[in-house]
Amino acid sequence: MITGRNYIGNRLKSSGTITHKTINPKLNVQNPTAFYEATSDEVDEAVELAWSAFKIYRKISGAKRAVFLNAIADEIIALDQELLDSYMIESGLPEGRAIGERGRTVFQLRSFADLVGHDDWRENTIDKAMPERTPMPKDDLRRTLIPIGPVVVFAASNFPLAFSTAGGDTASALAAGCPVIVKAHAMHSGTAELVASAIIKAADKTGMPNGVFSNIMGRGRTVGVKLVKHDKVKAVGFTGSISGGRALFDIASQRKEPIPVFAEMGSINPVVITAKAIENRSEAVATSFANSITTGAGQFCTKPGLLLTVEGDKTEQFIKDLAKKTIAIDPQYMLHPDIKQAFVENVNIVSSQAGAEVVGKVEGAIDVNEAPSQITSVSGEAFLANPKLHVEAFGPFALVVRAKDQEELIEIINGLDGQLTGTIIAEKEDHPDLFEVVDALENRVGRIIFNGVPTGVEVCPSMQHGGPYPASTDSRFTSVGTNAIKRWVRPVSYQSFPNELLPTSLKR
Amino acid sequence: MITGRNYIGNRLKSSGTITHKTINPKLNVQNPTAFYEATSDEVDEAVELAWSAFKIYRKISGAKRAVFLNAIADEIIALDQELLDSYMIESGLPEGRAIGERGRTVFQLRSFADLVGHDDWRENTIDKAMPERTPMPKDDLRRTLIPIGPVVVFAASNFPLAFSTAGGDTASALAAGCPVIVKAHAMHSGTAELVASAIIKAADKTGMPNGVFSNIMGRGRTVGVKLVKHDKVKAVGFTGSISGGRALFDIASQRKEPIPVFAEMGSINPVVITAKAIENRSEAVATSFANSITTGAGQFCTKPGLLLTVEGDKTEQFIKDLAKKTIAIDPQYMLHPDIKQAFVENVNIVSSQAGAEVVGKVEGAIDVNEAPSQITSVSGEAFLANPKLHVEAFGPFALVVRAKDQEELIEIINGLDGQLTGTIIAEKEDHPDLFEVVDALENRVGRIIFNGVPTGVEVCPSMQHGGPYPASTDSRFTSVGTNAIKRWVRPVSYQSFPNELLPTSLKR
Repeated sequence: MITGRNYIGNRLKSSGTITHKTINPKLNVQNPTAFYEATSDEVDEAVELAWSAFKIYRKISGAKRAVFLNAIADEIIALDQELLDSYMIESGLPEGRAIGERGRTVFQLRSFADLVGHDDWRENTIDKAMPERTPMPKDDLRRTLIPIGPVVVFAASNFPLAFSTAGGDTASALAAGCPVIVKAHAMHSGTAELVASAIIKAADKTGMPNGVFSNIMGRGRTVGVKLVKHDKVKAVGFTGSISGGRALFDIASQRKEPIPVFAEMGSINPVVITAKAIENRSEAVATSFANSITTGAGQFCTKPGLLLTVEGDKTEQFIKDLAKKTIAIDPQYMLHPDIKQAFVENVNIVSSQAGAEVVGKVEGAIDVNEAPSQITSVSGEAFLANPKLHVEAFGPFALVVRAKDQEELIEIINGLDGQLTGTIIAEKEDHPDLFEVVDALENRVGRIIFNGVPTGVEVCPSMQHGGPYPASTDSRFTSVGTNAIKRWVRPVSYQSFPNELLPTSLKR
Repeated sequence: MITGRNYIGNRLKSSGTITHKTINPKLNVQNPTAFYEATSDEVDEAVELAWSAFKIYRKISGAKRAVFLNAIADEIIALDQELLDSYMIESGLPEGRAIGERGRTVFQLRSFADLVGHDDWRENTIDKAMPERTPMPKDDLRRTLIPIGPVVVFAASNFPLAFSTAGGDTASALAAGCPVIVKAHAMHSGTAELVASAIIKAADKTGMPNGVFSNIMGRGRTVGVKLVKHDKVKAVGFTGSISGGRALFDIASQRKEPIPVFAEMGSINPVVITAKAIENRSEAVATSFANSITTGAGQFCTKPGLLLTVEGDKTEQFIKDLAKKTIAIDPQYMLHPDIKQAFVENVNIVSSQAGAEVVGKVEGAIDVNEAPSQITSVSGEAFLANPKLHVEAFGPFALVVRAKDQEELIEIINGLDGQLTGTIIAEKEDHPDLFEVVDALENRVGRIIFNGVPTGVEVCPSMQHGGPYPASTDSRFTSVGTNAIKRWVRPVSYQSFPNELLPTSLKR
């Protein structure tokens, strides 16, 4: 049941007076529940509880934390239709997507449970003593990874389950041994509360300390800023806009004790399409990118927003085909009226620049929160000259750039901001010419896809979801895949330690 | 030969007009050579050269980078007595120390050469494709670590070789595939230039691109600030004071594209000494800590500056013995008059606080730049109440705190800033009571030593040299040991890549 209250540890609290409601994008009306913004005292209490819980939770074995994570997955499934309904009325996304995303969320929780069930992830190393070494004997040294402290997670707008309350950030932090305080996304507060109730239930059933998890609500930035400034918060995970992520990064960097902020922010995900690929399979490429651009109403961090072609005989026709196929796909509801508005504004900014040509655009009557897909095209020269053409339009839009040759294409890639992904669509005959393209993309992105689409982010050890700034604030870490746990730990060395005082995983 | 000029890539340049000289601490006179501060144009040129070199150097195999690193080691040895003489006249440290530190520097270079001679360090992972998986096939995904870009290294004052021009930061960054620009420490500019000449010679002999290394000089902060602000610099290594490190961290965080700063800064390295250890082996403990406190005139980042005892029958006598032994050791020259002055000031700040009692102090005539060792003592209660007692005095000084019981001892540890190391001196009978102490130290330090001294930092995989802020700006990384290379790399994933376009270490 959705109450509209914050979870301060395992207690529902709402001593404040500021409330907000979520919005049903399909009906364009507010949903009934009023959600209470956490008060300053409630925020403090959540952090203090997390700090107390940390002392206990950090010492709980990986095997027991795995039981906790699996129990969260079970409790989320047990929420059943109530969760799916809440998801749909708060996001405008269809039931199939809700079920799929719930599956991914549960899979992530179980993946981290598997990971911490054994100690391999700790990168333990042991350097044995060499008492006979000259000129100085060498001591026994052992190194492991320990949790960093309470973590604040800001839930994403575009994945109300998989990147939210019990999403990848929360799952990886809990797996690492860090209590988590989630700042719920205001626009899916109900879904957040339901998932929070599942976590609280699982914590209770598996004997985890109170404070290991809290769910804090608020529409503005007040609550989030207070959390990030709190001296007992030791790291932050964030998925959202560049302005939001950067603001938190700046606050965290300016603390007396700066703390890491892992913000996964904007990305236009460049795609290089060779002239030969267009020559040989224009239609197939257009179809797959029309789908990738519009999946989830284009509201994926890895949506391909920038297609880089080299002008050739069939380039113009390819761009027309792509536009035709893109706008032929049924419009979908966007997550929220503000997101729709920002999308339209940004599409217009890009499309109104000198040299930009609207190739295809959904015209006519669509619902107020539905997304009008659009494809715009521009020359390489114009793109290079104008930073406004680099603006991200979060939604079903892509800008197709027509570079005059590979040299210009490389110059374009080198001039891009950091990105989550880069994609290459090419034929076998192209391979000898692609080393330079791969080289340029490596310097700008975190993941390079060959003859595929960037949407769809596998949860596995080799996944890198993160890239040079502003794709993320720390390109050395990933927010998806088992390596995401590395964000919440730090190494400690034990020198000449007696066995009984060593952490379990380092004992002789 | 020392020329007083900057290495901008492989060219000696000195187009500026600002110069400085180094100081011979023993004689308390300036050394003859005038060193030219790099001009703004020279700094730009060094970074642009590093950027061009990066495109080539990042693709040079680990095996070839290993040849380069070993050649640097050879060239440093070939500098022979000229290097040792320069080291001594610029640091006041004795020849034995110069030879020892040179040995460590060479060992570090060769360790990183060994590390990158093979690809194990890259943490490569491969997730094979599962084309039959339902509902969605899984693509082949491969992940490796690539170099982050040009790195700026700020040389330390206290290790003119091992943490300086060709020290651990430089060796690990070059090993990772990153060009390095060193900002030399002004007070050992001559030693820096000699070592820089060795690196330039090695780069030339092994065919490395021009710009892979530059050596920039300057006495104030102008040059360093310009380097850290430059958009083609991608990471910073620093060893020095909290004020210096924090200033660079702030500049780097406020850039349009923030970059990581690995600053290894202050630490007072708490030592817990149990009442039983004092009862059983007071004299041995006093001897080993008198030595550790005064090694290198106390100018080690891991110098034990805070000894935590629990009041017992023999505590008072132990503190007296420690003081007696400490001040009996011959005074040594400090690195520089400014360091001596700061040492005396900070010792006086700590020792003049309410309740602080000077137990032993070198009295009488010493040379102007020699360090007067001192031991001061204070109650646990006074220490807890007064942050000024936590001030670091960089030099041969320790504050001994007399906690009234273990509870107060734990409270003291919990209230400390982050530290590089923590040490426990205890007897076997103490072990059952020490879990709480270990737990508290884990949360405050990067390395815990049992029945040893914190000075002496082994270069090996299990070493953690770094700790919670302000010991370092990023506790998740180490600046000593082979893991130091991880600071200069970021992961990239390759999805469904054709074999010929994969990086060598990921090929099928």
